[in-house]
Amino acid sequence: MYLHDTICAPATVPGTGAITVIRVSGPESFALVDRIFRSSRGRLSDAAGHTVLHGTVVDPSDGEAMIDEVLVSVFRAPHSYTGEDSAEISCHASAYVAMHVLNLLCIGGARMAEPGEFTRRAFVNGKMDLAQAEAVADVISSTSSAAHRLAVSQMKGGYSQELARIREALVEVTSLLELELDFSEEDVEFADRSHLRSLLASASGRIRQLSDSFRLGNAIKCGVPVVIVGAPNTGKSTLLNALVGEERAIVSDIAGTTRDSIEEQLVLDGISFRFIDTAGLRSSNDQIESKGIERAMKMLATADIVLALVDATRSPAEAGRLLTELLSRVDDSSQQLVVLVNKMDLNKNVNDINKMVSDSGIQRNVLNISALSGEGLDALRHTLVRLVQGRLSGTSDHILVTNARHHEALRLTAHDLDAALSALDAGIPSDLVAQDLRSALHHLGTITGAVTTDEVLGEIFGRFCIGK
Amino acid sequence: MYLHDTICAPATVPGTGAITVIRVSGPESFALVDRIFRSSRGRLSDAAGHTVLHGTVVDPSDGEAMIDEVLVSVFRAPHSYTGEDSAEISCHASAYVAMHVLNLLCIGGARMAEPGEFTRRAFVNGKMDLAQAEAVADVISSTSSAAHRLAVSQMKGGYSQELARIREALVEVTSLLELELDFSEEDVEFADRSHLRSLLASASGRIRQLSDSFRLGNAIKCGVPVVIVGAPNTGKSTLLNALVGEERAIVSDIAGTTRDSIEEQLVLDGISFRFIDTAGLRSSNDQIESKGIERAMKMLATADIVLALVDATRSPAEAGRLLTELLSRVDDSSQQLVVLVNKMDLNKNVNDINKMVSDSGIQRNVLNISALSGEGLDALRHTLVRLVQGRLSGTSDHILVTNARHHEALRLTAHDLDAALSALDAGIPSDLVAQDLRSALHHLGTITGAVTTDEVLGEIFGRFCIGK
Repeated sequence: MYLHDTICAPATVPGTGAITVIRVSGPESFALVDRIFRSSRGRLSDAAGHTVLHGTVVDPSDGEAMIDEVLVSVFRAPHSYTGEDSAEISCHASAYVAMHVLNLLCIGGARMAEPGEFTRRAFVNGKMDLAQAEAVADVISSTSSAAHRLAVSQMKGGYSQELARIREALVEVTSLLELELDFSEEDVEFADRSHLRSLLASASGRIRQLSDSFRLGNAIKCGVPVVIVGAPNTGKSTLLNALVGEERAIVSDIAGTTRDSIEEQLVLDGISFRFIDTAGLRSSNDQIESKGIERAMKMLATADIVLALVDATRSPAEAGRLLTELLSRVDDSSQQLVVLVNKMDLNKNVNDINKMVSDSGIQRNVLNISALSGEGLDALRHTLVRLVQGRLSGTSDHILVTNARHHEALRLTAHDLDAALSALDAGIPSDLVAQDLRSALHHLGTITGAVTTDEVLGEIFGRFCIGK
Repeated sequence: MYLHDTICAPATVPGTGAITVIRVSGPESFALVDRIFRSSRGRLSDAAGHTVLHGTVVDPSDGEAMIDEVLVSVFRAPHSYTGEDSAEISCHASAYVAMHVLNLLCIGGARMAEPGEFTRRAFVNGKMDLAQAEAVADVISSTSSAAHRLAVSQMKGGYSQELARIREALVEVTSLLELELDFSEEDVEFADRSHLRSLLASASGRIRQLSDSFRLGNAIKCGVPVVIVGAPNTGKSTLLNALVGEERAIVSDIAGTTRDSIEEQLVLDGISFRFIDTAGLRSSNDQIESKGIERAMKMLATADIVLALVDATRSPAEAGRLLTELLSRVDDSSQQLVVLVNKMDLNKNVNDINKMVSDSGIQRNVLNISALSGEGLDALRHTLVRLVQGRLSGTSDHILVTNARHHEALRLTAHDLDAALSALDAGIPSDLVAQDLRSALHHLGTITGAVTTDEVLGEIFGRFCIGK
């Protein structure tokens, strides 16, 4: 039922810009538009696909009164976005006209589309898989070239093909095991256990690689989290303001001014960063500020890059305490630490602190800056970009998982594969191993939509806008 | 120079809705799009007009990196909106993608279009005249069916044709007079003076008719001004709220609560009304309120319909004083008075007041209402619609002038024609009469753009949005 009616919706916001595009898709698209469209070039029903007709929309129940002069693009199934017969009506960007045209289409028998319904139809009709459909939403929302590049690559289907390859290997292993079950009474082992094991281990490794890429993929998509920490009054807010170039954080010389974490987005060299300013790290009797410090520590755990700010006008010992604290908290495998020696313009303990940092074992990523004068900030920006690019070039094939739903599915898949591997090693019967594999295939299938439920589809497409 | 480059702009607002359309127009349109567009269907330069190509936009300077999957519509000169070679690129509705595509087009040699430049090119290339171009903006901004109908009719060109007919008649008269000038030494009169006079009088009459239609046309376009007047505390604000259906005016039982005029727009039966609530009409010692009353009187002059509200719980004499005041101020030829006897539910002096109103000579348009209970308001809405429809059906050919610029041009044309007629009657030499006629032709020509200056064009198209 769902797919057998004809839907319509504005694909652009009526009343803003020069034109409004109204999409129509479904078996009756041409007949419904022909009912209200007059053109010297003839009817949509007779027109070739991928052609544009110029004409007028009229109200047939009001003496053919002209509603607007329009262009109508004709797309014949399956060569359309949805895979169905479709039309796109370009009218003048008037909310009144758009409402009138949609109304006339609905009088003829069309239905207003639900959010994401055009893309949902494209999925159901096999024009794209779920991961590609989700990438369309990511393309629309990307605000940096790195995020855009990831979304476009996923939309093109490289990621889906990679998943299909893994799935194929798993299907092969599963069917070999299931073949044994058919002959279980004869106690045959068709599949070479060590070959099976290596196939599974390879698939599991690749799944875990993809799953692990989510941290970076998500950072690229949503902004790389950079947390600024340091003792009170070392210039964290001043640094954030200098980087972002406007007065976002409240700056004062009263220690503890920043109680809430403050976040600013900034695109450097096509990579989006989320800078998070935190409350100064010191013990405090002020209850509100203590909470701020507690939050700062939580924020620290979410950081991909930690900027440790030390004050060149204070003692190297104070800087040492902060670094000791941070070195115990920063996770080297996924987080990167940059030490910033601030207030270099005052030139007090700059050398001593640099020596202390170097002695503490941090060799790279120490920069002398002045948040106030701006000295050293270009080097800092360059370092930030270099750190992310280094991690990007570390990913062998540029496939990064950016979607939390996929990440969860990959995690569950990896869990099932581990169970299957253990079962295989423990000599557990094939039917139980096959059960783990079928579960893994199920979870993997949810990513591209090989396995779906209406609920999942509703959840995914409901977040799209109307007309998409 | 102006017309020989290629321009581009988004025709929809990027980042809202499902798709963004980017317009390209000018001699290099196809070459510029081909530089960044890859399609299995080939190049735009080889494509037929009015066809749609599916493909991808790539960045040729970045290893052909894919920017987006798009549809490109091809329009070959002169069969396009602008009359030039044009393309429309439908990309995903991402501000980032739109910016990137526009940027790539500009790198290739396109220029970002100025506001209204596509429509300005359409005018310069003879695809539409000025009045039609202005109607495009009116179609976009219309919010009621009556306003939309007027705008569409003007866009279709009926109004332009009517002006062309008048212009033709005037050109004929002028050339006859100028022919006489060539033979002036021979003192010939080619043109029959009484024939000339009747031609001129007919043109002048028609011009004045059009000019007079502006009051109604403007009311239809911007909303028919309905001013509500009455003594303090008779329920004007309550009536406005009841009509508009929400608490817009501050209602209280302290006389003089409404000091500023309050305006609300409401569409009834496809006609847009602007309801204007005024301060109560009574002498006041409060300086602010006196100013309010002064303004109420000014608003009264701008009304097309005056709603006189009298209070059934007060003396008929008070109602009489208001009506006497209003009858002296309302202009019967262009304004319509409706007397509303409010608080009919309290049923006090309703009959007495109705008798008094009838005695004062107002026969029609007296309604008993209760702004509080809503009784009689349907009849009021019906009366308002009927009054406007009556005036609309009074216009012989449904051509109404809606544009202040046109109204001014028509006023100047009529003035010149009057001068020409007087000159003709006074036996003034043909060359002086011809001079008046040439001036009339000039003013008439500015409406459709037969006569234009860059300044006028800049003024008109500069108000359009980018991409139109």
